[in-house]
Amino acid sequence: MLELVEEHRCFDGVQHIYRHQSDVIGLPMRFSVFLPAQAAHSRVPALFYLAGLTCTEETFPIKGGAQRYAAEHGIALISPDTSPRGAGIPGESDAWDFGVGAGFYVDATVAPWAERYRMYSYVTQELRELVLRELPLREDRIGIFGHSMGGHGALVLALRNPDLYRSVSAFAPIAAPSLCPWGVKAFSGYLGDNREAWKLYDASELVIGDAASRFDGGILIDQGLADQFLDGQLFPDVFERNAREAGHRGVVLRKHDGYDHGYFFISTFVGEHVAHHARALCK
Amino acid sequence: MLELVEEHRCFDGVQHIYRHQSDVIGLPMRFSVFLPAQAAHSRVPALFYLAGLTCTEETFPIKGGAQRYAAEHGIALISPDTSPRGAGIPGESDAWDFGVGAGFYVDATVAPWAERYRMYSYVTQELRELVLRELPLREDRIGIFGHSMGGHGALVLALRNPDLYRSVSAFAPIAAPSLCPWGVKAFSGYLGDNREAWKLYDASELVIGDAASRFDGGILIDQGLADQFLDGQLFPDVFERNAREAGHRGVVLRKHDGYDHGYFFISTFVGEHVAHHARALCK
Repeated sequence: MLELVEEHRCFDGVQHIYRHQSDVIGLPMRFSVFLPAQAAHSRVPALFYLAGLTCTEETFPIKGGAQRYAAEHGIALISPDTSPRGAGIPGESDAWDFGVGAGFYVDATVAPWAERYRMYSYVTQELRELVLRELPLREDRIGIFGHSMGGHGALVLALRNPDLYRSVSAFAPIAAPSLCPWGVKAFSGYLGDNREAWKLYDASELVIGDAASRFDGGILIDQGLADQFLDGQLFPDVFERNAREAGHRGVVLRKHDGYDHGYFFISTFVGEHVAHHARALCK
Repeated sequence: MLELVEEHRCFDGVQHIYRHQSDVIGLPMRFSVFLPAQAAHSRVPALFYLAGLTCTEETFPIKGGAQRYAAEHGIALISPDTSPRGAGIPGESDAWDFGVGAGFYVDATVAPWAERYRMYSYVTQELRELVLRELPLREDRIGIFGHSMGGHGALVLALRNPDLYRSVSAFAPIAAPSLCPWGVKAFSGYLGDNREAWKLYDASELVIGDAASRFDGGILIDQGLADQFLDGQLFPDVFERNAREAGHRGVVLRKHDGYDHGYFFISTFVGEHVAHHARALCK
């Protein structure tokens, strides 16, 4: 079932790394879990964090600085890896923006990726069900957030599954992947050339639907204005405009002078994101 | 003089990495500086952080999570590298606990280390004077802390230079290096076999002197009781006992159930350490 790889006491809770054999992906997968002290005696809300390109399940616990806030609110933090590893697909490690470390939270439909690269089903189903079964978490109090590729993932997973996720936010998300080089490369490779199929994984398309109004606290997006990828890869304004034109007033896109794309930006605002989720998950 | 390698906005301040040519060491050296927002319009206190074995100038800014607290108090954080790099001494990278990444904050006196491995003079003199000259820092408001090898370094530098450092604290320091394998290996290699010479770099010897009473807020040490190196390498109790027997009442040694030697431990308590220093530096 769950194999404990590491555990470290942290802010009166415990930071874990687990490994398990994934049926959906067909390979061993790792993920990190911070359990706050409150989890020792009761079930707690959980907040999934999806990391960006080149990251792993360790990136957020090491660099994000979120445990302090999760401890205060009594929320668990769960961060999966960013792709299958060890699939043995030729070329899977040739690029940093496709293949290993770049699963883009989709279920690939194109060979040779379709068999293993199934991060969408892995995160929404298998991992979610596994942690709900094995850890003291509240099934009805699950939120999701993420950064860059993982911000895209968080928006897509939440907008497609508002019954599974009660709250959502993102840091510098790839908010309109069909329009940007990273997204076009990933979707072409994993999903093929039929752009209709891409819409299932494009937050700026999905936000037009009804789900966008299902999140009581709205959709919080923080974006640094010195982000080296803002011009050409991220397009948060497209997401916000599409939401507004569809009549959804809950998107809060905050722009921050001087902040770039990295974890010094994330760590600055992660406390406000955890608080955003806590308003939905801890009430 | 100072070459800017990286800068990232963080908690309304700026996290920098700098490089410069060190005269004391005779090689290029790197260090990190977090400047809080207050530094934009006035000189601010500064807190030096000395990292442990295998670490670099980046470890603390990435893993420590201290910028939030430094921003609140208006204190700069400065972290040097842990050794010279590129000295070209045969075998300098053969071990993780001696040579590269393991300078132990001493001025080596034994060939071939004596020419380059001069971290004591580098930190107390050259780097200190450089940042006071180039950055908006208050010369009379400097504190120092560190972890493991760097906790040893912080205690030694402060106890030998109470006029330079107004406050001191440590996480899991190598508190009696003459008694432990790490310290014996380092001191034998850098200082030779004359154990009298080691006393200049052994905090448990130095704490017997008068300097230990010079720190108004006392000497704060946090130690995890699940620390894998506590038994045999760290000896905080020796430090505390020597201080007490010498009549110094200011050592506060706190022991924490379940915490280990890593940065999840440090990040949990770093806020209290910054507050400890702020009481001395910001009054």
